[in-house]
Amino acid sequence: MTECVFCDIIDGSIPGNVVYETEDVVAFLDANPVSRGHTLVVPKKHVEDIHGASGMEFLMDALVKVSDAVEEAFDPEGINIAQNNGEAAGQEVFHLHFHVTPIYEGDELEISYNRSELEDGSEIAEEISKYL
Amino acid sequence: MTECVFCDIIDGSIPGNVVYETEDVVAFLDANPVSRGHTLVVPKKHVEDIHGASGMEFLMDALVKVSDAVEEAFDPEGINIAQNNGEAAGQEVFHLHFHVTPIYEGDELEISYNRSELEDGSEIAEEISKYL
Repeated sequence: MTECVFCDIIDGSIPGNVVYETEDVVAFLDANPVSRGHTLVVPKKHVEDIHGASGMEFLMDALVKVSDAVEEAFDPEGINIAQNNGEAAGQEVFHLHFHVTPIYEGDELEISYNRSELEDGSEIAEEISKYL
Repeated sequence: MTECVFCDIIDGSIPGNVVYETEDVVAFLDANPVSRGHTLVVPKKHVEDIHGASGMEFLMDALVKVSDAVEEAFDPEGINIAQNNGEAAGQEVFHLHFHVTPIYEGDELEISYNRSELEDGSEIAEEISKYL
């Protein structure tokens, strides 16, 4: 056992419902699913969040494959992909993971973002692009 | 002008606040931001959703770079990455895009998912892994 539940699933010391595995990445069912087929895509290497994922392009390939498979398996109305960084953003397990969540007809998706009109766009863009 | 607002931003026929660009991918500010620095990561090639993203591993590299830059620029409490497929899942523009949304202290993140305990895990996993 490690201090990370996802590392424990990856090394087999606790059971997980694995649906896909390569040398670098594993996908298993979320233990507290939002919907039928809610799957997590997880790099085997322990990194905390997206900031540690440099060089992990294989995650995108896994996201596409798992999304395609969930679509084939359950024919949902839609699919959400989500990845949370930091407690304030809803991250609960501090081992990088992407949620692949099928959305079915009648699911009440209660995501109410307060969206505004973009102001000071060029200033904000400049601030970000300084670091790119 | 095309029939796709993101293609129009990519080809320059309508203005966008671009923060990052490579041969394959572009990142620009969301015109209806949830928070300061809300940025979209978008492949230049028009594909509708994640199911068209086979071979687009470069998107993961861009997600990491843009997340790092948003972190550096605005020091948010957290960052959400989200990608919606299908109207039922909240997709509004049908050109694949990932939201990179900084979360700041005091932001009311009203995402209330109804999470349950996983039942029939092995059956569900088997159903998905058939397609992987």
